[in-house]
Amino acid sequence: MAAAATTTRPAVPLLKDELDIVIPTIRNLDFLEQWRPFFQAYHLIIVQDGDPSKTIKVPEGFDYELYNRNDINRILGPKASCISFKDSACRCFGYMVSKKKYVYTIDDDCFVAKDPSGKEINALEQHIRNLLSPSTPFFFNTLYDPYRDGADFVRGYPFSLREGVPTAVSHGLWLNIPDYDAPTQLVKPLERNTRFVDAIMTIPKGTLFPMCGMNLGFNRELIGPAMYFGLMGDGQPIGRYDDMWAGWCSKVICDHLGLGVKTGLPYIWHSKASNPFVNLKKEYKGIYWQEELIPFFQSATLPKECTTVQKCYIELAKQVKAKL
Amino acid sequence: MAAAATTTRPAVPLLKDELDIVIPTIRNLDFLEQWRPFFQAYHLIIVQDGDPSKTIKVPEGFDYELYNRNDINRILGPKASCISFKDSACRCFGYMVSKKKYVYTIDDDCFVAKDPSGKEINALEQHIRNLLSPSTPFFFNTLYDPYRDGADFVRGYPFSLREGVPTAVSHGLWLNIPDYDAPTQLVKPLERNTRFVDAIMTIPKGTLFPMCGMNLGFNRELIGPAMYFGLMGDGQPIGRYDDMWAGWCSKVICDHLGLGVKTGLPYIWHSKASNPFVNLKKEYKGIYWQEELIPFFQSATLPKECTTVQKCYIELAKQVKAKL
Repeated sequence: MAAAATTTRPAVPLLKDELDIVIPTIRNLDFLEQWRPFFQAYHLIIVQDGDPSKTIKVPEGFDYELYNRNDINRILGPKASCISFKDSACRCFGYMVSKKKYVYTIDDDCFVAKDPSGKEINALEQHIRNLLSPSTPFFFNTLYDPYRDGADFVRGYPFSLREGVPTAVSHGLWLNIPDYDAPTQLVKPLERNTRFVDAIMTIPKGTLFPMCGMNLGFNRELIGPAMYFGLMGDGQPIGRYDDMWAGWCSKVICDHLGLGVKTGLPYIWHSKASNPFVNLKKEYKGIYWQEELIPFFQSATLPKECTTVQKCYIELAKQVKAKL
Repeated sequence: MAAAATTTRPAVPLLKDELDIVIPTIRNLDFLEQWRPFFQAYHLIIVQDGDPSKTIKVPEGFDYELYNRNDINRILGPKASCISFKDSACRCFGYMVSKKKYVYTIDDDCFVAKDPSGKEINALEQHIRNLLSPSTPFFFNTLYDPYRDGADFVRGYPFSLREGVPTAVSHGLWLNIPDYDAPTQLVKPLERNTRFVDAIMTIPKGTLFPMCGMNLGFNRELIGPAMYFGLMGDGQPIGRYDDMWAGWCSKVICDHLGLGVKTGLPYIWHSKASNPFVNLKKEYKGIYWQEELIPFFQSATLPKECTTVQKCYIELAKQVKAKL
């Protein structure tokens, strides 16, 4: 309580009772101290990966529930095998147990970034703003998000498309350590992302993108079931494609249902590069697999009868089973 | 010559003998003084609009050719009616008489912008860099142009797509006066674009955008014939859709031929808003027309036999004639 009183968090946190923060982790959550002014008003769902006998310490003053592998096994029974073990993909268990309309997920090696003026960025607040304003997937606006202060639709943007569509996903970016694959990490071990790009944009309909799960917000009611993170980790041949899988599935479904996906702001500060040698081992089968997957998802179409994200996901799963 | 010696232009201007700068104008080109360090090494093609008896003054030291309406009529004969009169769309006459591989076109109310550090932006140099590096239209890279210093393809970007495709168009942006349509100008008369977004990106395949002719570079060999600016001005019912028309045609053709279109940097400083009441009169028929055009261009497909931009443009023209 004392800590809360000294923070500078906004007077009325947006969507305070409608959003859960989901954090997969294997360690004590000291990183939350830095996020306290921005996160403390929200409920956390912590998904403890790895050894369930280990105790994860959460800084005082946070409202949270924590699930370890024993909890997941107990709650899901035989279906627990759908949740990745020893991989941050286990976070999607948190999406499932959440009862809120919105979810924000962040990795525990992500810290508060600063904008070029030196001000700390409230990443969660920016995600919420992205999710609460429409998207424009049918036509590209050259001044980026037309709903931001100081921006609008430019000359030549069709008026019939200016209402936009509901935003389902807000994909945030990373300063410092960029989200590179193992080969790029190996080739450019010292590359750091120092470029603050002050933009948010809608990823156009029909275009796929690499969705990273490190700093991600979404509307659980609109797209939740498609946010299943692919099965990785213990016993699985491929790693580091869990969030990509969710990104491809959810983008195809958003395109079908007329929902928007935004990328750009907010940035977080990604503190630590994962080991490129370990990553290469996890990734190398995925690097081939992906070349087959992308054309599949690029050409996937869903029938008109698929009017809900659940129906879409089941149909897409059938197509995956039949064609991949 | 004396002037050239005092400038701070780069020692070896990029593509010095392979690029023409095309400027449509009705006034003395004093604005070139500010651009001298960046433009003086290049050849200018000035297309004088309006009264041909008027003399346009060009600052000393620039290498240029100038065409007025009499020249256009003499050179094109009966076909001169294809070139807009009393409209900056006449600039495309300059694209035609150019014999260079690259064209940069700029309006005479556009000045040198500064980046956030206060440094003057060499817009032409940035356009050239955009045109000389590949585009990535088949998959979205969340860290924007992967070929820029300090950036790369992110995890999950298919390796088979990392070579990119040749860039045909570089669409630059505007600080200060944004390129708004008349209704938006009327509603937001004081809005200025102050947001410097440090990004260049490829507009994905299948996505249309509003291409503004104010600050535009392109590869004339790759896409020149599709850069015809729609007939506007004297005797025409619609205004301010000339560059849009070229943008839709060229994007459909770039998508078909596997060429790239980039947007973002460089910014120029757009000094003066045009009169919104005059603009509304020019635009209002276009506002309806556009709602029919966009679905047409969004669904336009070109047959395999169209292997050159010329063939594509003729085929697209046939479809326009048949369907619009």
